[in-house]
Amino acid sequence: MDNYSTKRTHESETTVANIESTEATGNWGRWGPDDERGTLNLVTPDAVLAATRACTTGKVYSLALPIQRHGVPIFDYRGSPQRLSLTSYADAGMYAPLGAPEGRGANEDVLVIASHSITHMDALSHVFSDHVMYNGYGAETFTTAAGAQKLDITKTGSFAGRGVLLDLPKHLDVEWLEPSTLIDSEMLESCRAAQGTEIRPGDILLIRTGWLELFASGAAGFESGSEGGHAQPGIGFDALSFIDDHDIAAIGADNAAVEKMPFDRGDFVGVHVELLVKRGVTLMEHLFLSELSADDCTNFLLVVGALKVTGGAGSPVNPIAIG
Amino acid sequence: MDNYSTKRTHESETTVANIESTEATGNWGRWGPDDERGTLNLVTPDAVLAATRACTTGKVYSLALPIQRHGVPIFDYRGSPQRLSLTSYADAGMYAPLGAPEGRGANEDVLVIASHSITHMDALSHVFSDHVMYNGYGAETFTTAAGAQKLDITKTGSFAGRGVLLDLPKHLDVEWLEPSTLIDSEMLESCRAAQGTEIRPGDILLIRTGWLELFASGAAGFESGSEGGHAQPGIGFDALSFIDDHDIAAIGADNAAVEKMPFDRGDFVGVHVELLVKRGVTLMEHLFLSELSADDCTNFLLVVGALKVTGGAGSPVNPIAIG
Amino acid sequence: MDNYSTKRTHESETTVANIESTEATGNWGRWGPDDERGTLNLVTPDAVLAATRACTTGKVYSLALPIQRHGVPIFDYRGSPQRLSLTSYADAGMYAPLGAPEGRGANEDVLVIASHSITHMDALSHVFSDHVMYNGYGAETFTTAAGAQKLDITKTGSFAGRGVLLDLPKHLDVEWLEPSTLIDSEMLESCRAAQGTEIRPGDILLIRTGWLELFASGAAGFESGSEGGHAQPGIGFDALSFIDDHDIAAIGADNAAVEKMPFDRGDFVGVHVELLVKRGVTLMEHLFLSELSADDCTNFLLVVGALKVTGGAGSPVNPIAIG
Amino acid sequence: MDNYSTKRTHESETTVANIESTEATGNWGRWGPDDERGTLNLVTPDAVLAATRACTTGKVYSLALPIQRHGVPIFDYRGSPQRLSLTSYADAGMYAPLGAPEGRGANEDVLVIASHSITHMDALSHVFSDHVMYNGYGAETFTTAAGAQKLDITKTGSFAGRGVLLDLPKHLDVEWLEPSTLIDSEMLESCRAAQGTEIRPGDILLIRTGWLELFASGAAGFESGSEGGHAQPGIGFDALSFIDDHDIAAIGADNAAVEKMPFDRGDFVGVHVELLVKRGVTLMEHLFLSELSADDCTNFLLVVGALKVTGGAGSPVNPIAIG
Repeated sequence: MDNYSTKRTHESETTVANIESTEATGNWGRWGPDDERGTLNLVTPDAVLAATRACTTGKVYSLALPIQRHGVPIFDYRGSPQRLSLTSYADAGMYAPLGAPEGRGANEDVLVIASHSITHMDALSHVFSDHVMYNGYGAETFTTAAGAQKLDITKTGSFAGRGVLLDLPKHLDVEWLEPSTLIDSEMLESCRAAQGTEIRPGDILLIRTGWLELFASGAAGFESGSEGGHAQPGIGFDALSFIDDHDIAAIGADNAAVEKMPFDRGDFVGVHVELLVKRGVTLMEHLFLSELSADDCTNFLLVVGALKVTGGAGSPVNPIAIG
Repeated sequence: MDNYSTKRTHESETTVANIESTEATGNWGRWGPDDERGTLNLVTPDAVLAATRACTTGKVYSLALPIQRHGVPIFDYRGSPQRLSLTSYADAGMYAPLGAPEGRGANEDVLVIASHSITHMDALSHVFSDHVMYNGYGAETFTTAAGAQKLDITKTGSFAGRGVLLDLPKHLDVEWLEPSTLIDSEMLESCRAAQGTEIRPGDILLIRTGWLELFASGAAGFESGSEGGHAQPGIGFDALSFIDDHDIAAIGADNAAVEKMPFDRGDFVGVHVELLVKRGVTLMEHLFLSELSADDCTNFLLVVGALKVTGGAGSPVNPIAIG
Repeated sequence: MDNYSTKRTHESETTVANIESTEATGNWGRWGPDDERGTLNLVTPDAVLAATRACTTGKVYSLALPIQRHGVPIFDYRGSPQRLSLTSYADAGMYAPLGAPEGRGANEDVLVIASHSITHMDALSHVFSDHVMYNGYGAETFTTAAGAQKLDITKTGSFAGRGVLLDLPKHLDVEWLEPSTLIDSEMLESCRAAQGTEIRPGDILLIRTGWLELFASGAAGFESGSEGGHAQPGIGFDALSFIDDHDIAAIGADNAAVEKMPFDRGDFVGVHVELLVKRGVTLMEHLFLSELSADDCTNFLLVVGALKVTGGAGSPVNPIAIG
Repeated sequence: MDNYSTKRTHESETTVANIESTEATGNWGRWGPDDERGTLNLVTPDAVLAATRACTTGKVYSLALPIQRHGVPIFDYRGSPQRLSLTSYADAGMYAPLGAPEGRGANEDVLVIASHSITHMDALSHVFSDHVMYNGYGAETFTTAAGAQKLDITKTGSFAGRGVLLDLPKHLDVEWLEPSTLIDSEMLESCRAAQGTEIRPGDILLIRTGWLELFASGAAGFESGSEGGHAQPGIGFDALSFIDDHDIAAIGADNAAVEKMPFDRGDFVGVHVELLVKRGVTLMEHLFLSELSADDCTNFLLVVGALKVTGGAGSPVNPIAIG
């Protein structure tokens, strides 16, 4: 079943050279010159096993928004997802030649959906900077026809670990953080301490900003076509030390980009570059964290099974938390 | 965030009437006249919590095949899935006006994929018989424009539970069951006993037939356009008592339809009708079970997060098992 | 090359019965009980040949708007059309094994587009009323899987004839007709007479309302999500006598539905029913008529080659007028 | 309605430089440094007017194959076209709130189709060589997100002119030319002379090879997955002088690539480079020429209205010939 191997185009020599010539390459080479999994390497089987022991209620939470044309946050250039009918009751007659009795048949759909739609995760190939991606793989290894020949979603899309929620609106006693609020290490640590939440190396950090509640309120102006949706609370460069100090394996948030918008320091997708490109930290966006928040569930087993799209730069996901 | 409610079209009276007039309606009404979740109701939080204690190694298994145009089993009428590039390195220039330095940008895709492609799960609205679906919902509640207004994939696509694997080829000491092999309760029980596997109410039953190994060998003739792919080992009507006796919550298999093809007793999707329609048992198909088999991992936590497509009759999935 | 025949499901008896029982069935049976072409039958080879003699300048006009995500009128439920890249310069390397020298390759796209997007034509199967379509074909002959088994776009999508333009804004000396303006036979005749335009049986009638200029002005409020786009000038029931008297073969307009919106007499797609269903008159919408208007070109050869989609209920088109 | 202008990235200086440094750049600069229409410039209004006088029967021919999943030639990497239902009879109820009486509604589709599927035309941006396209536009002006910013299908997709058919199988008294037959200027001239067909500057040349009859016979092995479809009769480099001498405006054929396959002289898309890149000659492929052949119609008005897809590198087309 080894259908998805791709020919080796990445040269270790190049990577080493890249690492030598670039001071701030974060985790490049940390798990070898061929690594395509980044900080998810921190979630060892032992860590996963320990995470299963974090569960105390057995309650299952879906952290995904529904996939539909309206009522959910969608950036215009990605198009609205489309569910189209492939077969239905109207086709019942087509099964008669196959021996189907009258009134029997099947309903099926076809989906047209951008991989970064609504609740989704980024593959490590999602962002490039200085013409390279995580671990020194060249940006040109993503081709139009084949997609990501390195760092595609099949490399990182299947994982589990201990999830921790930092519930900033609850900590700050607000409904949501105001658009453009900058979240830094101090705010994260203050929330963590107040919650009494322990964070262990390899944990998956989920940050609730309240953005989806703001979106649902209609006050964000997202759907009106204004630029309202482009002003969101999120982390900035000053949050990186918190992430580094705790050896976080992956990060999710309820906003569009994990990072603040407009971008901190005016640096286009600058925090993505720090996390995806330099550190190999997997990101998940538009997570639905309201139920976890309502239950004060801040520590849980988190399980993610993205679509294993060969060459994919991301995938819509439905992460499952078990409390 | 209650964007996906649909108007109530189902009448309890009708359901009751249906139940009275039909002897073999299995689980209709068992969880109330409005239930849309079927046997997944058997997986209580306590059962989930117990399932997390089943894990002993913390090893994470992805049970999905890759999503790609070739090398994986695809029924022709569903079309091959397409990953198309939305943005890439070639667009790096378009970010300059947004303040992006040279050589920085993002890779993104659009997917076109049938919901029942490759590794997937069926919503309870997937099959109808005698013009109705599970719990008496009318087949006409699936409309072309809106899809499933009842029993869509959002109702069943998020779950976790204790998974058990019945590894038939290993039990029978063959590489794979021959095409068209009928699997019955006796074969399942014999395998279970030999494995020493305990099955509890609410467990998720995964049946390995070896079909994907046969497919990968090329001997099945699936890709050659012949009807080879339409002869597969799978369960028949005689396996239902095993499923009923153990109060199974969901069933997955490595073949195309869980049930045998050509259909047992020549009854078109007959076992689907028994499971999906009458009992409300969720089905998953084309599961990649080879790694579990190689590790003799027959008892695990299984977590499924399908795409939450409003109106969807199914979804590609990447189920995660934790050993 | 006879790949698109479909099995005969339509019964002549039924048609006759329908005709007898329904007084106002217009052209049903006029070209035989099996006809799927409607008033396009009026455009005989002689009429086409005569139409070629209408050309006096040889200037070629494209009557289509561009197909793109923005800046053109699109009803939300149809989704924006998507042009996605299939291959490009970034894939140049993939041709090397085929003997391509460096720097050589091909650009290709994939389109995702609703058949009734932007400038398009309706197949005669587009609308049904009283459960039937033109010539008595049952609405159920359009199935989810196969689409239109009767009256699909392959039956009417290829035609040519003499086109005449009635340029109402120019006649009335306005930039555009106000939204919801009802166009009746009197207005059409007044315009025709003032223009000095002769209309012959089998002519294709193009009606300019100025709607696209109103749309382009931004004043229609179409793009802002309001219901502005749903108020448009167009013909009403009182225009039918003009169409009947002149034995028009097909009708096009620059608005969304040929007919007025909100619908005349509050009758949902009522004029569509009169034209498509009862008379079999082909309709084209969102035609770009501004260049013809600027040149005072009111009489021309019109040639239409729709996508020959088997089962299609319509098609985007780029009609060509030759002045 | 000027929605499709794109920013100017092409520098005349560069073009001039390219022309100076490359001996065989054919028509670069012939219609100015900014030209994006190539030899279609040869079809002046006078030529179009004269072409309308070529019609003698008024019979309308569609030169397109049907668009469907099977039974038509499709290269695998482009995927089969999909017609999916957007609305149908099953949705009739959704119109009731809009005032629709029972049994009234609309059928609509969504298409997913590669722009170079089945019967199609190439935009001048379809092929690049030495990193450039026609008239010196850089290959990198086709970007993943925006497609062709130069030479897209909107520039060439709307045209009409005098079409001439060279019917090689009829001339040679065979059903079809054998796969891999090389068509050269001598064969074209011999056929032209035997037919007594006059060719004028600006004519559109249609070449019938009989390939579609071979395909329909099943003998080509196209659908069986073998490489049979990749051996086709077509023109080679030696046919270019015929095309140049007659100042042909556009070329169509019934085969997959106009040019012979495997490629003449083993030069990957070498004739495409000569025609599209160097000369700016528009190409149309998989034209259905059998009806013209059956009627001995070798001289006609040809009208093409491709989909006006902004950024498109090609389009499916339904060219119309009027005899």
